[in-house]
Amino acid sequence: MLDAGLIAPIVGLVGLGFAFMSYRAVVRQSAGTDKMIAIGDEIHLGAMTFLKAEYSKLVVFVGIVAGLLVWGFGVQTAVAFVGGALASGLAGFIGMKAATKGNVRTAAAAKDKGVAAALLVAFNGGAVMGLSVASLGLIGLGALYFLFAGDKNSVGSIISGFSMGASSIALFARIGGGIFTKAADVGSDLVGKVEAGIPEDDPRNPGVIADNVGDNVGDVAGMGADIFESYVGAMVASITIAATMSPDVMAKFFGTDVTTAMLMGLPLLLAVLGLIASVIGIMGMNVFKNMDPSKALFVSELTAGALFLGSTAVLLQVFGFGMGIFYAITAGTVGGLLIGKATEYYTAAAPVFKIAEASKTGPATNIIAGIAVGLQSCAIPLFLIAATILISYNVAGLYGIAMAAVGMLATVGVTMTIDAYGPVADNAGGISEMSELGPEVRKITDGLDAIGNTTAAIGKGFAIGSAALTALALFVAYKQAVEVKAGTAVTMDITNPLVVVGLLLGAMTVLIAAAMTMTSVGKAAAEMVTEIRRQFKEIPGLLEGKGKPDTARCVEISTNAALKEMVAPGLVAVIAPVAVGFGLGAEALGGMLAGSLLTGVTRALLMSNAGGSWDNAKKYIEQGQVEGEKKGGDAHSAAVIGDTVGDPFKDTTGPAMNILVKLISIVALILAPLII
Amino acid sequence: MLDAGLIAPIVGLVGLGFAFMSYRAVVRQSAGTDKMIAIGDEIHLGAMTFLKAEYSKLVVFVGIVAGLLVWGFGVQTAVAFVGGALASGLAGFIGMKAATKGNVRTAAAAKDKGVAAALLVAFNGGAVMGLSVASLGLIGLGALYFLFAGDKNSVGSIISGFSMGASSIALFARIGGGIFTKAADVGSDLVGKVEAGIPEDDPRNPGVIADNVGDNVGDVAGMGADIFESYVGAMVASITIAATMSPDVMAKFFGTDVTTAMLMGLPLLLAVLGLIASVIGIMGMNVFKNMDPSKALFVSELTAGALFLGSTAVLLQVFGFGMGIFYAITAGTVGGLLIGKATEYYTAAAPVFKIAEASKTGPATNIIAGIAVGLQSCAIPLFLIAATILISYNVAGLYGIAMAAVGMLATVGVTMTIDAYGPVADNAGGISEMSELGPEVRKITDGLDAIGNTTAAIGKGFAIGSAALTALALFVAYKQAVEVKAGTAVTMDITNPLVVVGLLLGAMTVLIAAAMTMTSVGKAAAEMVTEIRRQFKEIPGLLEGKGKPDTARCVEISTNAALKEMVAPGLVAVIAPVAVGFGLGAEALGGMLAGSLLTGVTRALLMSNAGGSWDNAKKYIEQGQVEGEKKGGDAHSAAVIGDTVGDPFKDTTGPAMNILVKLISIVALILAPLII
Repeated sequence: MLDAGLIAPIVGLVGLGFAFMSYRAVVRQSAGTDKMIAIGDEIHLGAMTFLKAEYSKLVVFVGIVAGLLVWGFGVQTAVAFVGGALASGLAGFIGMKAATKGNVRTAAAAKDKGVAAALLVAFNGGAVMGLSVASLGLIGLGALYFLFAGDKNSVGSIISGFSMGASSIALFARIGGGIFTKAADVGSDLVGKVEAGIPEDDPRNPGVIADNVGDNVGDVAGMGADIFESYVGAMVASITIAATMSPDVMAKFFGTDVTTAMLMGLPLLLAVLGLIASVIGIMGMNVFKNMDPSKALFVSELTAGALFLGSTAVLLQVFGFGMGIFYAITAGTVGGLLIGKATEYYTAAAPVFKIAEASKTGPATNIIAGIAVGLQSCAIPLFLIAATILISYNVAGLYGIAMAAVGMLATVGVTMTIDAYGPVADNAGGISEMSELGPEVRKITDGLDAIGNTTAAIGKGFAIGSAALTALALFVAYKQAVEVKAGTAVTMDITNPLVVVGLLLGAMTVLIAAAMTMTSVGKAAAEMVTEIRRQFKEIPGLLEGKGKPDTARCVEISTNAALKEMVAPGLVAVIAPVAVGFGLGAEALGGMLAGSLLTGVTRALLMSNAGGSWDNAKKYIEQGQVEGEKKGGDAHSAAVIGDTVGDPFKDTTGPAMNILVKLISIVALILAPLII
Repeated sequence: MLDAGLIAPIVGLVGLGFAFMSYRAVVRQSAGTDKMIAIGDEIHLGAMTFLKAEYSKLVVFVGIVAGLLVWGFGVQTAVAFVGGALASGLAGFIGMKAATKGNVRTAAAAKDKGVAAALLVAFNGGAVMGLSVASLGLIGLGALYFLFAGDKNSVGSIISGFSMGASSIALFARIGGGIFTKAADVGSDLVGKVEAGIPEDDPRNPGVIADNVGDNVGDVAGMGADIFESYVGAMVASITIAATMSPDVMAKFFGTDVTTAMLMGLPLLLAVLGLIASVIGIMGMNVFKNMDPSKALFVSELTAGALFLGSTAVLLQVFGFGMGIFYAITAGTVGGLLIGKATEYYTAAAPVFKIAEASKTGPATNIIAGIAVGLQSCAIPLFLIAATILISYNVAGLYGIAMAAVGMLATVGVTMTIDAYGPVADNAGGISEMSELGPEVRKITDGLDAIGNTTAAIGKGFAIGSAALTALALFVAYKQAVEVKAGTAVTMDITNPLVVVGLLLGAMTVLIAAAMTMTSVGKAAAEMVTEIRRQFKEIPGLLEGKGKPDTARCVEISTNAALKEMVAPGLVAVIAPVAVGFGLGAEALGGMLAGSLLTGVTRALLMSNAGGSWDNAKKYIEQGQVEGEKKGGDAHSAAVIGDTVGDPFKDTTGPAMNILVKLISIVALILAPLII
């Protein structure tokens, strides 16, 4: 068959070339008026400063873990770990750079050239992130595969190291980014909107730059690292499962012509097809841009998806894999899409109106209704994940489950592009407001932003679904690694008390980390409130629009809070599986993976969706969609409270759950040989 | 060995005699002034009317299920099921009768005789419930054991039928009771306290009688049915596990002198010892009553606990069981106690002050802080449950885990007494307020009520811990039943996709039921709000204290809402395991049990504890314990909102989770032979 280890890095490099083209397409646009340029620079600088501060802290962590890995697994795994961390960090850096150049240029395009041009700039801003994630994943993993695929004994541990590197960065990027963005958002809203009565994104509010920086830090860098981790994790799990598959299972599902090497190479080849399809979908935006914006995004995604599935079918047929894998991949793709659609329903349809209605009797009923929606919203995605597992297992065994995850993530180039488009458009709106570009421009950016909210909701559902499947695939890989090392079948029976204890401790770990992140946002937001209040009081003429707010100080507060608060939950996630593995053994650790998976996924769904629905309930009241209620009324005040509660739900704790679950799984997979 | 089937019902009958004595001790007290008698009668009548309406609806459900059981398992299991339902219903009826006679007499004793006398009346009021639960459990299960213990093939299914009968009543009692009480509470608070600005328990508020009825319906009948179910379930699981234990395992843990029959009889004998110890502890209150009330309750519980553990040690030694079982029982008892203490910490110590502090920046930060406390509060109990499982398994195998649950629940006579004491004292306070007995009396009843809040928190933690262990024991029994029927070892491996699918569907079922109960409270409370507003508007002179509120109408609304809304979540809990068992088989159903257990227990802990801590944060501000804040201030308003959100958390959805988890397990245990 084709040499996946050679093709993947090459196509990855080509993909990076397209990312650079997208970047050029963004930066050669005008950045608008002097005021716009100044504001854009402030946001760009704030985001880059945060990223540098974060990475310089992560270097210490990566160094320590790499040292431990050298000691426990040898130099190769440690180098792979550093490589994974570097690749994830680099993708975040490139993506953030583009997004924070794209925001102000989107606003300028909206001002000077209209909707289509603005859409294209924002889309290209996002595409840099999307293509970087896909390309760097292929380059890194492909290169390792090229070097070590022949070494069946250690390839698993080496590529797992790469995946763990990606996970480590993702954990800190998600938690740190989540704390940064919500401290800024909650803090500036509480003082600005509620106390001082000035609009959102008002330039007089010292926290507003930090808020805009936060959108990038959380939704671009954080989301990117999350998806990068799933993308790599799904491939690593497939390769590991393939490497240890028994001949019987292979013969049963794939006939006798398929070899282990073919199955190991397949995920990389599929990712190659996915990247090529994504590039075509992304480049197509130059044509699609004249459609209605939300349709244009959909067509771009659909083009990539159809090309990917079509070319996959051909590849599988040509090399004689049979169609089982195709069905598994299709199940993953369709499952991911439907989870996204379910998320959209719960955060933008009838349930949101129920929350808005409940706001009429005050904040308490608004909160109760939101929690109820969050609980409800878990059902369909859990069912869809279960159905995807059943289907993909039946057509292609445990390998099929991992392939479903690969299928969900193969076109990450375009899905991540659309995710990252959201904060760029959001920022563009903020910059238009701060630069006083007037209602016409604001209308364009608001329109683009509104689509971004929907794509963000779908993207979050997608991220959770793919995280669940990836974690499950890693979990299966863990079990197989344990069996390989033990040299015998190992049963992790669900009534085995050690497994049950693991289940409970897995749930416990996830909940502790969730509590920590919630508390951190509260603390950091309180600091922000104090600082903004101080500036309103001490800076002469600030509220009258004559004084200049010290926005840098607010960015600094968010940065410091995020960097300080991300450490403890991060350590919990790494230490817990190590402690359970060495303290209680492989079965308890298996239980822990299942417990953290179940608890983490339900918590992520509940919190992300409840948060999203509170946010939109508030917006619907503001837009006059709820009869008899308007902005500033009692129901609106109640809805604002719900929205504020939802902020850390949907942007800090909920997303952190995804990473936690994957990180615990990958740590377990790496530990497997040591705890037998 | 002693004939457990003979002793248990006899001691149970004696226990019922003591329950009757306690009842006499309550009703021969004065019920106070005419006004007090009238209010007491209203609450009593409301509670009894609700119970009758509930039971007449349950008769239909019990009839249908009994019919299905006759068809699937024969007449004996069906009769046992009806028996379990009857016993649970009877315990609830007797207990409610006593509690709603005890409340007004507690108030009268506080008025006429002082603290010690009031404490004793409230305690005796609760003791009727405590002793009824323990005695009826022993009588019912003992009699079935006496009749069928020799029939090894069907004794498991017959006693499981009894347990399922208890579970079915419990589910509806908990959900219906929870909806009743919170609809009344939230509804009357929203209109009375928030809109009309009148105090809690003010006689002008039409919802206040329903609120007091609700305390009994939820915290006496609901809690009693919950504990009854755990008590019976723990014994059924032990008996079933013992019946199918392999000779190897028996020899390993208990030596060669212990027979299957001895192990099967043991849980009943331990419950007999527990009941005797409880009676002594309860009767001792006649002496302890002169101590400080909270100390008196503690000494009563401690007496019973010490007597139980001491006599158990003797029994185990005399009959040669060895001390393994003793350690398991001690682990259960100590674990339960510590879980209660952890609950007390999170709902009445430092974390509560953090929530109170967060109230200063408004309702949003109050809610965020409360959710964070709820998440945190899961950790220690989950760890304690895990530790109890590990210890009890190591000393006595899977049987040990069931025995830990039995140990936790054996002294249910006294623990349930103290639980039921709480709402009696709470009602006494309400009656004092409504009858205008003055601040001196109110001070006594408030003191008793405050202790009741602490005991209620501990009791809730205890209920969750025992439910978790009981469900786990039932789960183990289910697996063994599957293996007996299959005639071979059955593996439910945690990486088996069917098991994973079951895990996900188990979580889904629990979350759907949770969402339903939350929504129900919202709907019912809205109806109540509308009705109370109507009365304030339409009844002349009501707010001036001249008109008479139509309290019966409010009781009716709560009753109808509860009866209507309890059906859907109840059916979900029964149908889900049947559907998964028949649709996906025994392994998926096993996964479902684990998934529902994990999700249900964490959700119960989170919601109960968050709710309790919001409640107390509000109280601490009211009591002036938070510097610079007082009743009626901004922080207090924020805390009231948190408290209202917490109402359905802690009194409806949280407690419903316990039952759900146990009911799903018992349904699975009964189904086991049919799905192989």
